[in-house]
Amino acid sequence: MSNLNLGEHISQQFNEDLEEVRSKVLQMGGVVEEQLERAISALVNNDNDLARKVVKNDVRVNALEVEIDEECTRIVARRQPAASDLRLVMAVIKTITDLERIGDEVKRVAKMVHEELEGALSEEIRQELEHMGELVKRMLNDVLDAFARTDAKAAFEVAQFDKKIDVKYMVITRHLMTHMAQDPSQIPTILNVLWAARAMERMGDRCENIAEYVVYLVLGKDVRHVKPEDYEAELIDD
Amino acid sequence: MSNLNLGEHISQQFNEDLEEVRSKVLQMGGVVEEQLERAISALVNNDNDLARKVVKNDVRVNALEVEIDEECTRIVARRQPAASDLRLVMAVIKTITDLERIGDEVKRVAKMVHEELEGALSEEIRQELEHMGELVKRMLNDVLDAFARTDAKAAFEVAQFDKKIDVKYMVITRHLMTHMAQDPSQIPTILNVLWAARAMERMGDRCENIAEYVVYLVLGKDVRHVKPEDYEAELIDD
Repeated sequence: MSNLNLGEHISQQFNEDLEEVRSKVLQMGGVVEEQLERAISALVNNDNDLARKVVKNDVRVNALEVEIDEECTRIVARRQPAASDLRLVMAVIKTITDLERIGDEVKRVAKMVHEELEGALSEEIRQELEHMGELVKRMLNDVLDAFARTDAKAAFEVAQFDKKIDVKYMVITRHLMTHMAQDPSQIPTILNVLWAARAMERMGDRCENIAEYVVYLVLGKDVRHVKPEDYEAELIDD
Repeated sequence: MSNLNLGEHISQQFNEDLEEVRSKVLQMGGVVEEQLERAISALVNNDNDLARKVVKNDVRVNALEVEIDEECTRIVARRQPAASDLRLVMAVIKTITDLERIGDEVKRVAKMVHEELEGALSEEIRQELEHMGELVKRMLNDVLDAFARTDAKAAFEVAQFDKKIDVKYMVITRHLMTHMAQDPSQIPTILNVLWAARAMERMGDRCENIAEYVVYLVLGKDVRHVKPEDYEAELIDD
């Protein structure tokens, strides 16, 4: 499915550099996935200890971003990549920015966990949040997979998937607004739950960004401000 | 104040390319500033027509991002920049991502404007939002200025300024929560105002990101996950 000819470089070392960067991005993605998994678990189980671990662990994500960024700059300076290799480096630079920001949103979710949340989380809301978390986890996993396989079609499907998360977010928002109206004394606490849902919705947006970089990487075409429907046809011949 | 020796390139054409990119970034920044100005005016005056213009105009910001991105990729491919020139290109690529996202947040503010908002906006909240908008506008203006002059000290000050916006955001949030508790029927509308304030708070975060790229550009040091206090000393000798 890959359109990139990673085997055709003059220098073996260059190949290794690029492979190293790709695998580091996936490593960073893995850390973010683990953080997300834990943050959602902390939120729905109101687990303070786990939430604190997530907040603390965000430095790992940040450190990987800085490391990969430096590696990319080094590659551009030393290897002077052209065409698809340069696209790969550019896509990586943008991808890790979004991965790091997903990490920030994960941290935001974890920060919303605290004792008072217990009263604000009905079983229904808890299940809704858990389900939304599952959707975001799946989206993140799928986009990392599309990146790993430089699969534009899979990336396209990820970009489409974001709509499901947006719908879920609207449903949760409506429920939370009803709760606030029913029990105004709970407003500050329920707002925290709303912020957590909002953070998850933003993660979906960022996964969509990454999906667009994968399409750029494969097609050499910037689709960031193009509706998926409008470049779908180009993926058929892929 | 600039540490970049933009005059020392082998090729005159290269100089011109870099200058072109720098001026396009400032042009993009100018469009975002204008959009922000209008969105805040639309919000506090509940001006639907102006809000619609802002939403429509966001395509200009997006188009500039794509254009500058392509220009940067072209420069890297053709001119194979090293050292400080490469840093400039990398800083530009990251800066325009954040500028585009500020544009998205501006659009979010504009989208919150609608008829029902009238009832939710007390004179006090209106003034608070206007003031918060002034702070964000100032921060955006200052960071673009720091970028234009590649002034790390000014960028450092911008990064510090974000704290003021965060405080303002907390004050507004508290006021809005009180309003919600007093009149639960207004909750959905007041939440819209809260989203607008949140969007402005995020703009501040993104200005801080840009400030960090300017520091990176000048000092050649990645300060994204470093507290401003911890690199302040290095700016003294600047």
